[in-house]
Amino acid sequence: MSSAEIREPKYRVVADHLLALLDELGEGVAIPAERELAQRFAVSRVTVRQAVQELLVAGRLRRQGRGTVVAGPKVVQQLVLGSYTEGLSEQGRRPGRRLVRVEREPAGAELAAELGIAERDEVIRLERVLLADGHPVGLEDTRLPLARFPRLLADFDPSTSLYAYVRASGVEFESATERIETVLAAPREAMLLETNPGAPMLLLNRLSYDPEQQPIERVRSLFRGDRFSFVTTLRRPDPPTGSR
Amino acid sequence: MSSAEIREPKYRVVADHLLALLDELGEGVAIPAERELAQRFAVSRVTVRQAVQELLVAGRLRRQGRGTVVAGPKVVQQLVLGSYTEGLSEQGRRPGRRLVRVEREPAGAELAAELGIAERDEVIRLERVLLADGHPVGLEDTRLPLARFPRLLADFDPSTSLYAYVRASGVEFESATERIETVLAAPREAMLLETNPGAPMLLLNRLSYDPEQQPIERVRSLFRGDRFSFVTTLRRPDPPTGSR
Repeated sequence: MSSAEIREPKYRVVADHLLALLDELGEGVAIPAERELAQRFAVSRVTVRQAVQELLVAGRLRRQGRGTVVAGPKVVQQLVLGSYTEGLSEQGRRPGRRLVRVEREPAGAELAAELGIAERDEVIRLERVLLADGHPVGLEDTRLPLARFPRLLADFDPSTSLYAYVRASGVEFESATERIETVLAAPREAMLLETNPGAPMLLLNRLSYDPEQQPIERVRSLFRGDRFSFVTTLRRPDPPTGSR
Repeated sequence: MSSAEIREPKYRVVADHLLALLDELGEGVAIPAERELAQRFAVSRVTVRQAVQELLVAGRLRRQGRGTVVAGPKVVQQLVLGSYTEGLSEQGRRPGRRLVRVEREPAGAELAAELGIAERDEVIRLERVLLADGHPVGLEDTRLPLARFPRLLADFDPSTSLYAYVRASGVEFESATERIETVLAAPREAMLLETNPGAPMLLLNRLSYDPEQQPIERVRSLFRGDRFSFVTTLRRPDPPTGSR
């Protein structure tokens, strides 16, 4: 059918040629100058620039100083009830966290309903930039009931795993609901993640529960689309029925 | 800390005002003209345009004819081993599918390895636009071994559920691995999904298996970020251990 045969614009063809070149070059190697690429592919420098821009957004290239180099693979995180620290360590990547803010504030109506507390009750709000091998990949905004974690502001080291702290304080994670969307980075988020406003992001909204179905935390996590992906294994629901 | 207090640009403030207005107006109602909004919020028309653009990308507004109206909520799909048709019906939305192409082609090295077939073996390639209440929301590109579904090209009605067809031919879905990323729409994808090139998309790559761990299908699905989100429930892995 005709709609399957739409001709790709020239910069997409150049992007495909470039992709083949990246495999030859290998991670961290600089690609040739724009002018040289334009000659090689017999296209204008504007077309080369568009192709490079596309591969930057896709996370196949990254800027380094004044040059452009082949990017490493995206972080592939399991979609599990666990900590960022543990997930990254399993992949042989070095996790890190940079504190943006930690403060107490009134819950407000919406959050209070989600956390099962009173509207005037206070929550701890912890916002941190997530790092992989020293580079910012995510922004995590967690809110927990202050009454349940009264020592957190005094005791918790924000460069470490919050999940480990919560478990050490005797609270067990049993389940979580998670919503996954894509959004564009707002200016403040882009600055904290060292990317451009309007860059595509994966947005995860999580509500975690303990074994008594009591909410533990509300988390809004934003991950750079060019540096992050999630994987999950889906299974047939139990008990299996013939008529699914 | 200072990084938490970056001033939002003016159009973001206008976007927040607009959001409050949308709740008052309700789904399907047209927003006031650009000129009127500029007066109301005491900003330039350019600023209003930026704010409207942001809410279009976020799926809170949509174009309708020459106007701009309040969009309905995003489709919220469970991340499960099931069919698009069933998932949508459960939400009270009307699922639909529009055939883009169905053809047979040689598997090639990469796909052959994934599907556990020979490189020269043929696959059926089925590409369809997914509709929700008549509007395009996704693009699904499925490849299955021809030898396992020899009657598919003759028997299968591409406006119906492929999962139902596969099950009816005696093949049971047992598990799937799924990878979730965000990408920008390529021109051809944007045209098929009636959106703009560069619009943010959720990309899902799935490999489905039967109870004997034999691969059934390879699926690449693209969903409009402004119309679609996914939800999942995460549970503590069994058996539970105290030292997770």
